[in-house]
Amino acid sequence: MAGRLYLVPAWLSEDAPVESVLPTTVLERIRTLNDFVVEDAKSARRFLTACGHPGPMRDVAMKELNEHTAARDVPDLLEAVRAGRDVGLLSEAGVPAVADPGSLLVAAAHAEGIAVVPLSGPSSIVLALMASGLEGQRFRFLGYLPADASERTKAILELEKRSARERETQVFIETPYRNDALFASLLESCRPGTRIAIAVDLTGPEESVRMQAVEAWRRKPATIGKRPATFLLLA
Amino acid sequence: MAGRLYLVPAWLSEDAPVESVLPTTVLERIRTLNDFVVEDAKSARRFLTACGHPGPMRDVAMKELNEHTAARDVPDLLEAVRAGRDVGLLSEAGVPAVADPGSLLVAAAHAEGIAVVPLSGPSSIVLALMASGLEGQRFRFLGYLPADASERTKAILELEKRSARERETQVFIETPYRNDALFASLLESCRPGTRIAIAVDLTGPEESVRMQAVEAWRRKPATIGKRPATFLLLA
Repeated sequence: MAGRLYLVPAWLSEDAPVESVLPTTVLERIRTLNDFVVEDAKSARRFLTACGHPGPMRDVAMKELNEHTAARDVPDLLEAVRAGRDVGLLSEAGVPAVADPGSLLVAAAHAEGIAVVPLSGPSSIVLALMASGLEGQRFRFLGYLPADASERTKAILELEKRSARERETQVFIETPYRNDALFASLLESCRPGTRIAIAVDLTGPEESVRMQAVEAWRRKPATIGKRPATFLLLA
Repeated sequence: MAGRLYLVPAWLSEDAPVESVLPTTVLERIRTLNDFVVEDAKSARRFLTACGHPGPMRDVAMKELNEHTAARDVPDLLEAVRAGRDVGLLSEAGVPAVADPGSLLVAAAHAEGIAVVPLSGPSSIVLALMASGLEGQRFRFLGYLPADASERTKAILELEKRSARERETQVFIETPYRNDALFASLLESCRPGTRIAIAVDLTGPEESVRMQAVEAWRRKPATIGKRPATFLLLA
């Protein structure tokens, strides 16, 4: 009989205890698993150790699934499940299969009739949305905006228009070292009344979530720095 | 000095222990709060009791914020925060301020410079998306589709087109007694290759998540029944 594919959430901040973001029974489940498909093996070992996994880590089987994995190699990652073992899918931060390539493995599991069990944990997208005060009944997550400045401006103008038309909060992320460039583009391109929220270092010691209209941000612009950030916009 | 507004996640299923969806430190925080803004007072009392809140419940201040609350009355709900007390915002199920009117209170808090602290917990939208195996790098939550059959069909065709154009998973919900009617509409209206996932009774004892193409669903249609369900579509 096949095992199950557990979707294991990870921490968002390594500076906070896992007990502040993961339920007790999820931690207990993690400690029973000895086969994982992970985005990055090194950070996975650090996370499992923090969860009190009995280890030793060299005996925990870890296969990587990330942007370097070819789609045709994904079904092979289910070998341990087919052999009857429960396997955990683990992202580098937050919940797996959202904003990472893990959904390919989940789709492969469904195609084989393998049971998929999602476990509760922190999602930066949802935590940022909750705390933003922006429209939570309609929202859209669109990953990264273009890195090129003029392309980015074009994308911002389009999503602002769309947000206004559909009354839909737009949620997006950026590589930390580009946070402040993205923020500057937003303040430059958006209408004064458009509301922008920035959630920084969620669940971590320096967590902050701020939301105000573009005109208010312009009066006293903030610096985000190279910290994990989620951006939200409602026009 | 003002208190803080804690965004408190609730369970998704009352048939599962709170320890399976809420972190220990979140449970500890909940037990310290004596002022809440809730979507429904009766279910909030049941939830707080399950969390081991020391009570007694009659001494816990509860103000309601739901679809019957006028927008102009929302800032008054922050009175206890202004008086220096920490207040919890609590939805009937899952995380507050997502797919419920709680974001009005969060926006009012930001306008007064009150600290907003989102706590980790189960979101049916995210659990369903993780477990669907559908595109998790771009997705959109759009709440309820129209109840009228022909309007609903029109909406389905539009979101299928949009999903294909943007490679974006569409996530939506339905009132439980209309689940099977919505599912029938989806199978009738969508193209054979469009993939549909249904997540039912998430975190509960009868949890199931299934995903396959419309043509496969048509060969052996499932019955959902009157259980909490989340629908996902990727064309």
